[in-house]
Amino acid sequence: MGTIRGLQPDDWDDWRALWGGYLAFYRAELADATTRATFDRLCSGMDGLFGLLALDDAGGGIGLANCVVHATTWSRRPKCYLEDLFVSPAARGHDVGRRLLEAVKQAATERGAPVVYWHTQQYNGRARSLYDVVGRPTSFVVYEM
Amino acid sequence: MGTIRGLQPDDWDDWRALWGGYLAFYRAELADATTRATFDRLCSGMDGLFGLLALDDAGGGIGLANCVVHATTWSRRPKCYLEDLFVSPAARGHDVGRRLLEAVKQAATERGAPVVYWHTQQYNGRARSLYDVVGRPTSFVVYEM
Amino acid sequence: MGTIRGLQPDDWDDWRALWGGYLAFYRAELADATTRATFDRLCSGMDGLFGLLALDDAGGGIGLANCVVHATTWSRRPKCYLEDLFVSPAARGHDVGRRLLEAVKQAATERGAPVVYWHTQQYNGRARSLYDVVGRPTSFVVYEM
Amino acid sequence: MGTIRGLQPDDWDDWRALWGGYLAFYRAELADATTRATFDRLCSGMDGLFGLLALDDAGGGIGLANCVVHATTWSRRPKCYLEDLFVSPAARGHDVGRRLLEAVKQAATERGAPVVYWHTQQYNGRARSLYDVVGRPTSFVVYEM
Repeated sequence: MGTIRGLQPDDWDDWRALWGGYLAFYRAELADATTRATFDRLCSGMDGLFGLLALDDAGGGIGLANCVVHATTWSRRPKCYLEDLFVSPAARGHDVGRRLLEAVKQAATERGAPVVYWHTQQYNGRARSLYDVVGRPTSFVVYEM
Repeated sequence: MGTIRGLQPDDWDDWRALWGGYLAFYRAELADATTRATFDRLCSGMDGLFGLLALDDAGGGIGLANCVVHATTWSRRPKCYLEDLFVSPAARGHDVGRRLLEAVKQAATERGAPVVYWHTQQYNGRARSLYDVVGRPTSFVVYEM
Repeated sequence: MGTIRGLQPDDWDDWRALWGGYLAFYRAELADATTRATFDRLCSGMDGLFGLLALDDAGGGIGLANCVVHATTWSRRPKCYLEDLFVSPAARGHDVGRRLLEAVKQAATERGAPVVYWHTQQYNGRARSLYDVVGRPTSFVVYEM
Repeated sequence: MGTIRGLQPDDWDDWRALWGGYLAFYRAELADATTRATFDRLCSGMDGLFGLLALDDAGGGIGLANCVVHATTWSRRPKCYLEDLFVSPAARGHDVGRRLLEAVKQAATERGAPVVYWHTQQYNGRARSLYDVVGRPTSFVVYEM
């Protein structure tokens, strides 16, 4: 595998394709304007967002991580919500996901956020077998209203 | 029960007592300076934080809700993370928790955040029996690193 | 403990009180007309409904079980959905719940339904510790739309 | 994809093949007489049963949904139990499952049942990733005796 680096405006085509695969995984649809606005904020760092992109040896995008750094009531330092993580199906099995998670941790630390957290479907065995190694499960489940 | 309203600087004593009970529930300790900084931000709205306080008929604090409005990659509108919710043990059984949740939903909506989410221990039956009615469970669990 | 028997029209007052406690447990509200119609159907056996009532030694109602016998695609015989089970808080710890479950099983068998099933909150430890003994857990969770 | 419509007596061969695949998924065996009786009831609407069939462009059966409309103690209107849902492996990935679920919802509504519910194995990630989008998870698990 090649490298992992911060998302840049020139990455639009690669990022858009990965984002589309990610949305399809969740059977979700999103307005193009929202996708574009998210990409712009991930590149610029606006609203606490930042994005990482994993590249193969040829420089093509094979994975993404989208993060939101936000305040918390438990600390004067912010924490980092890893909102989206995706590796292209063709690139799986080569530790791209693990390296993205480690890069998120480092990037969050650089931004003053000592804790990274994320949500995953309780039944997503494939993802959780990685998360259990790189991170740690909690006893928390997520509610919405 | 009395009212629910936004947290104000004069509420420090009441809020501090409730926050202490909440931390004890999670067997957590927090530096006083952090607690004070969190209170100040909850009152001022800085960093997207806001706090609600439930008062009994005599005007004493009986419940708190601490929230963080933050950006999300899935929408151009922010979402609201209900980070802390606590009702004084003596005040339980009178719908204070439900009314706090409903007030959070309204306050989030007013701040442009159409979705409120929160975390709860999967085995916290008392809390979840309320959350199942006011909100909706998801299939997501929480990881950290 | 006294006896368990089929619900009768004269049981309205006792049943109504238990049903109210049960609804409160789920923080639910139901129109009176619905409650009355359910009671009438549970007594008459209409629409496959039947009800059981547990009585203490003095003949007062201390527990209820409401069931629906309905067809299934897996058998030519119907199955029995135990939709509601409730024991008065004051009467707990005396095997009323277990005896109600056993009586439901017998009543279902008499109605030609060899299988009884029910739903419970995954986090309801108190109830599940009984269900694990009298019945058997499955790997199934419940979805709605 | 072609259409989704109510099950008809002429669909026996198609339905039988899908039902066989469904039973194999659950490693279950069923007497032929039971299967035939279920099919007949799904076509005729007897005992509250109804069936839907998904067809490909050539008119071949690629998916089934078997439902039971039954009474409930919580409402004077019945609810709809989606007991069986199956899409032919060769037809997966084309939204047949989602369309069947939506058609079940519509058919249930037409029969006066405003709520559809179903059971799924807690670890069936493939199915649940769809159910999480079309429906909503609950906190309930299933017991039997």
